[in-house]
Amino acid sequence: MMRILIDEKGKKFIAGEGDLHTNFGYIKKEDIDNSSDGQVLETHMGHKFTILKPSINDYIDLMERKCSIILPKDIGLINAYTGLGCGSKVVEAGTGSGATALYFANIVGPTGEVFSYEIREDFTEIARNNIHKFGFKNVSVKNQDINKGIDENQVDMIFLDMPEPWNVVEYAVNSLKVGGYLAAYNPYIEQMLTLNKVMKKNSFSDIRSFECILREIEIKVKGTRPKTRMVGHTGYLTFARRL
Amino acid sequence: MMRILIDEKGKKFIAGEGDLHTNFGYIKKEDIDNSSDGQVLETHMGHKFTILKPSINDYIDLMERKCSIILPKDIGLINAYTGLGCGSKVVEAGTGSGATALYFANIVGPTGEVFSYEIREDFTEIARNNIHKFGFKNVSVKNQDINKGIDENQVDMIFLDMPEPWNVVEYAVNSLKVGGYLAAYNPYIEQMLTLNKVMKKNSFSDIRSFECILREIEIKVKGTRPKTRMVGHTGYLTFARRL
Amino acid sequence: MMRILIDEKGKKFIAGEGDLHTNFGYIKKEDIDNSSDGQVLETHMGHKFTILKPSINDYIDLMERKCSIILPKDIGLINAYTGLGCGSKVVEAGTGSGATALYFANIVGPTGEVFSYEIREDFTEIARNNIHKFGFKNVSVKNQDINKGIDENQVDMIFLDMPEPWNVVEYAVNSLKVGGYLAAYNPYIEQMLTLNKVMKKNSFSDIRSFECILREIEIKVKGTRPKTRMVGHTGYLTFARRL
Amino acid sequence: MMRILIDEKGKKFIAGEGDLHTNFGYIKKEDIDNSSDGQVLETHMGHKFTILKPSINDYIDLMERKCSIILPKDIGLINAYTGLGCGSKVVEAGTGSGATALYFANIVGPTGEVFSYEIREDFTEIARNNIHKFGFKNVSVKNQDINKGIDENQVDMIFLDMPEPWNVVEYAVNSLKVGGYLAAYNPYIEQMLTLNKVMKKNSFSDIRSFECILREIEIKVKGTRPKTRMVGHTGYLTFARRL
Repeated sequence: MMRILIDEKGKKFIAGEGDLHTNFGYIKKEDIDNSSDGQVLETHMGHKFTILKPSINDYIDLMERKCSIILPKDIGLINAYTGLGCGSKVVEAGTGSGATALYFANIVGPTGEVFSYEIREDFTEIARNNIHKFGFKNVSVKNQDINKGIDENQVDMIFLDMPEPWNVVEYAVNSLKVGGYLAAYNPYIEQMLTLNKVMKKNSFSDIRSFECILREIEIKVKGTRPKTRMVGHTGYLTFARRL
Repeated sequence: MMRILIDEKGKKFIAGEGDLHTNFGYIKKEDIDNSSDGQVLETHMGHKFTILKPSINDYIDLMERKCSIILPKDIGLINAYTGLGCGSKVVEAGTGSGATALYFANIVGPTGEVFSYEIREDFTEIARNNIHKFGFKNVSVKNQDINKGIDENQVDMIFLDMPEPWNVVEYAVNSLKVGGYLAAYNPYIEQMLTLNKVMKKNSFSDIRSFECILREIEIKVKGTRPKTRMVGHTGYLTFARRL
Repeated sequence: MMRILIDEKGKKFIAGEGDLHTNFGYIKKEDIDNSSDGQVLETHMGHKFTILKPSINDYIDLMERKCSIILPKDIGLINAYTGLGCGSKVVEAGTGSGATALYFANIVGPTGEVFSYEIREDFTEIARNNIHKFGFKNVSVKNQDINKGIDENQVDMIFLDMPEPWNVVEYAVNSLKVGGYLAAYNPYIEQMLTLNKVMKKNSFSDIRSFECILREIEIKVKGTRPKTRMVGHTGYLTFARRL
Repeated sequence: MMRILIDEKGKKFIAGEGDLHTNFGYIKKEDIDNSSDGQVLETHMGHKFTILKPSINDYIDLMERKCSIILPKDIGLINAYTGLGCGSKVVEAGTGSGATALYFANIVGPTGEVFSYEIREDFTEIARNNIHKFGFKNVSVKNQDINKGIDENQVDMIFLDMPEPWNVVEYAVNSLKVGGYLAAYNPYIEQMLTLNKVMKKNSFSDIRSFECILREIEIKVKGTRPKTRMVGHTGYLTFARRL
């Protein structure tokens, strides 16, 4: 079972296979192993670290990432609109570093399954490693081109984060169970439009596209205001349902 | 197991304890019971209805609702930021019609638990009934004032949708497990500010407030554009973590 | 010189050629004529009306309007980005009810000029009438198809609010003075994209497109929040400069 | 009369009192003086520069600026909501580097007037210099504390960009003509709320607060999308009217 340590400033460290060495001193592996969640350990220099079982977000922040990941605002919308839940069967592509696979796996749990397609071998390795380290056993990362077909059937949700998701729509019809959802994430308007057209041709229902704009509110002594700088755009989310 | 029928225009009906009667004719209960998901049944007038196991969103749309509910955009953000997953233990207040309890229950699954506090007896009844009908057994709706305390311990996430959430913050500290999240939904800026202050006083970490603006994109023959009318504001979401 | 009267609830009335008759009684034309701005007159029923020289916004609210008009948020952005000022020479199409022509005329003043092209005769009449009533003499409404050419030269700003503005771009090059701006308002993304392409082909500089999202903040005793309902989209504004 | 030169990459230079020296060679003052707007001059190294009378935005980009300035999106909204036009009489505080004074002066023209209050002597000097160089004669920069009173009467619009604008509201009532507008720009919600309260106490009408969110759309070969990074917040704009 993975554990992390958080220092006094909020910086997080994964407890690894040896002692933990930081700029504020070290903590022995033995002490970490013998501590319980929430316990505070001190380095030899007197700095305090809190021991914790990481949340899925802690872990995704800390794990190896070789490409940009989808933000919580977008993952949350996907989950909420498709009704993803414990026990759901999910197919997704591409895997990337495995962040969305981890999010989905966290929700579908041991009785659910996540099949994640990735065309690049290096990403496949990184993702498999990331997922393995976190201890999830409900994810299969497949080094396979989803443009050539989807092996799974009776799927609850298919999520596509790839440059030309429209090539997969026809496979998705057969792979989804009736009532299942196809979701896609596209940075560009042109992608969203092509996808929309192909979804219509393939008789998908309830086709809708959204963008989710997240504003953080800054509450300081000086006053309250939305943050000066913000992410203006990540991607458009398109949802469709097989009926 | 609950099932729904969707007519040719997308209108949904819960399959109840008798025959289904609609403006487009009726379908016998027997035929519904003997059909499988995705099968298409015809009314005596020849109109087609698709049989379906409802998604959580289908059901929340159809169930009895006596008060406004939190939108998927906000529920999604709560789930994503707090890392809610299969097996999580959740406390929430107030229950209302039970929509958020259902969303949470759908994710935490049979190995998780949702404890939902509701001060009004009528809402408690409606929510219990809504949850029972859908078949979830992992939700306890408690007709109890959360301002007087939280019974549960080692909770992963507490969600507050109530006018004065700050009264509960002190209880939340003890109820949450280390690393657990407190989340709140407030329509007004003043509420967000008071909550923020009380969270700080109670040594919560990572206190952040957001608003989530969802824009739907309209794709028509005439052209593509964000919808002319949109929801401008629902509520501010505030997150904090016990460390 | 036009004047208006504002009742106790903020409702506005144009002072016309006879007595003013309202649901709250009447006021004699003579009394209106003899009053000065800011003076309060009473109807025979004792209700109070304030006499005022209307602002441009007062007048546009009150005048005859047969089609939707561009909102202040968008007009403001056009004026600010193109540096419209007193003395500027403006060409616009189509005129519609004359609202934008009035906005521009208000800024360019007697030493400036507004030439407004309108293909429909009925709109031309309405706009001329609206502009005449307000007393502006610096606007020429031309019942002429701008797709066939622009008569004016050495123009500071050309504003296009029409379904296919790209047909006019080539004429705009010759009509604008060096350093002058071409601005366009398009509800649809596809229009914006076509216009952008044609602007590039015609060697325009500084081509930029924007959308302006205006949120009103509601300040009530209950609390402060952005309005629940808002205008989600009006149109994209595209600017380009002849260099 | 001020003129600027724009190089092949869009970089702008003010034509000063001597020859223009750039990294791409020099152009003689004599040649600049003898050229007409839009003419292209070459440096001794063969690089092309276009001669131009600067727009107000060109100039504000080039002039000396010692503090942050209000963006066109906000200036535009102020002008549009208050109906600022040729001939208007404006009071503003604080002057800063003079950018808003220049914007207003550009619109009100020679028959209008701008009175700009600035408490700091250094800013007063910079602003006066900036305005003088551009050739505007309708602006008076007053090194005077507006918190002690407003000298002007029958003013069409008062604009306040200062930390505690509420101190000026009472003076504004007497200074504005009937129908005139008070506008204010405040980064923080708390400022907006205090201002709103004081405006109500002083019997202002039509009090409304807004925020203007501007999104730029990026149109590239790869595709179209809102820019990834954007300004999330500048300030709240509050408008009120004396009736």
